[in-house]
Amino acid sequence: MTSLVNGQPAASITVTDRGLMYGDGVFRTLRAQGGVPLGWDRQWRKLAADCAALAIPLPEEGLVRDEVSRLLVESPDCAVKIVITRGAGQRGYMPPGDPVPTRIVMASPLPAYPEHYAREGVAVHLCDLRLATQPRLAGIKHLNRLENVLARMEWQDPHVAEGLLRDEAGNAVEGVMSNLFVCHNDALITPDLSRCGVAGVTRQRVLEWAARRGVAAEVRDLPLEEVLAADEVFLCNSLAGIWPVRKLAGQEWGRGPLTAALQDDLQQHDD
Amino acid sequence: MTSLVNGQPAASITVTDRGLMYGDGVFRTLRAQGGVPLGWDRQWRKLAADCAALAIPLPEEGLVRDEVSRLLVESPDCAVKIVITRGAGQRGYMPPGDPVPTRIVMASPLPAYPEHYAREGVAVHLCDLRLATQPRLAGIKHLNRLENVLARMEWQDPHVAEGLLRDEAGNAVEGVMSNLFVCHNDALITPDLSRCGVAGVTRQRVLEWAARRGVAAEVRDLPLEEVLAADEVFLCNSLAGIWPVRKLAGQEWGRGPLTAALQDDLQQHDD
Repeated sequence: MTSLVNGQPAASITVTDRGLMYGDGVFRTLRAQGGVPLGWDRQWRKLAADCAALAIPLPEEGLVRDEVSRLLVESPDCAVKIVITRGAGQRGYMPPGDPVPTRIVMASPLPAYPEHYAREGVAVHLCDLRLATQPRLAGIKHLNRLENVLARMEWQDPHVAEGLLRDEAGNAVEGVMSNLFVCHNDALITPDLSRCGVAGVTRQRVLEWAARRGVAAEVRDLPLEEVLAADEVFLCNSLAGIWPVRKLAGQEWGRGPLTAALQDDLQQHDD
Repeated sequence: MTSLVNGQPAASITVTDRGLMYGDGVFRTLRAQGGVPLGWDRQWRKLAADCAALAIPLPEEGLVRDEVSRLLVESPDCAVKIVITRGAGQRGYMPPGDPVPTRIVMASPLPAYPEHYAREGVAVHLCDLRLATQPRLAGIKHLNRLENVLARMEWQDPHVAEGLLRDEAGNAVEGVMSNLFVCHNDALITPDLSRCGVAGVTRQRVLEWAARRGVAAEVRDLPLEEVLAADEVFLCNSLAGIWPVRKLAGQEWGRGPLTAALQDDLQQHDD
């Protein structure tokens, strides 16, 4: 892992940073390939929207883009993580009147997912933990991620690649580190994320792909039963791409035709 | 602010610390007076319980107690914050198999609350933000505190000392940085914190005081209407002690006799 903090080569931040004290910040994880941060425009727009939602001043795009580029000189193919916090603060929840956000840019090795995950699909654990309903934080990729941590601690089996999270009502919401889609009768459905969950950039790409291709797509509550009865189920994020779900809660699937078409198209256009 | 990180004089932690990445940690804030960290045993027991709830290995008590003492040599009267995180980690929500927790001990100046807060009471803002229901995190003083940050951002008026938080159902739960009690017909009631909120150490002291003094005390759901109709309302935490509520949502109170008795007794016994 190499990192820049506020543009300086550094691997540490001050203990008074509100990112540490309160999880008062947002982040992005994206894939770099051949020195290019894939889907930069989308990633930046989402980072900007998340900062705005928490009233964290947005750093200049050129500044952060440049910091990413500097890391990619040494690590052209890597996982990039960008963290923006509300910066250092005095004791207490009240943000400083004029916060100076902290920028952290990190490069890590790309995760070594087995190739068959994308081809044959992944086994998914049905998590016990239910996501809490918090409309003020839903959709945002903020630094309050204890739910994801606790959910990820539910399984140790290395052959289980992901966990599926539900809300209190039993609706499927997302994977621990990915978004969820099902395909049923040639239409896509992905959970509404206005009460919990993180609205990822790849999810947005899938929805736009569907619109371009004339595939019907719905964003709405998705009871677990509907997931289990679907023709195809897949998970997506910026590092993994699209993973068909092979196994979940006793149900089994192969890689379906829509999932396969989507994988082909999305790989060809890293927009 | 002076601080020790893992026993070393330091003001920074690694950017890969899971406390920063995910808010994967817990904390305590306590008052030191004349070089003594008040209520240490209780504070430590709560820290231990919170670490256990998140499966974070607990550092040795003597180690942390010693680090606090070292800070108090220079700052005998201060606010002490202790943060325990799950430590540094690789990318991803999965905790390391053998996590090495990070210990951060900080000393800050005591907040300069006006004296009349304790004597005459405080004006309290009724927060719009509703606390989410998450039984797996409720009661724990963890580092995922964006709800408190957003709630604290709801008011700027320096004459308003605290905000009151409700759950989705409209029950009063706690202050942004304190616990809530009401007194009605000579009985104390404090909200049940098994679905949201932080179960503070001073709240526990108040409940034990009531048991010792033969004052009836209930821990249960507390609709806002019941707060507004109560004879006395007060807030408590380790730094502020007991603050009568003087004003909330159009309702006004003076400092009641039970609140006053409690203030006297708790100040005399810093157990």
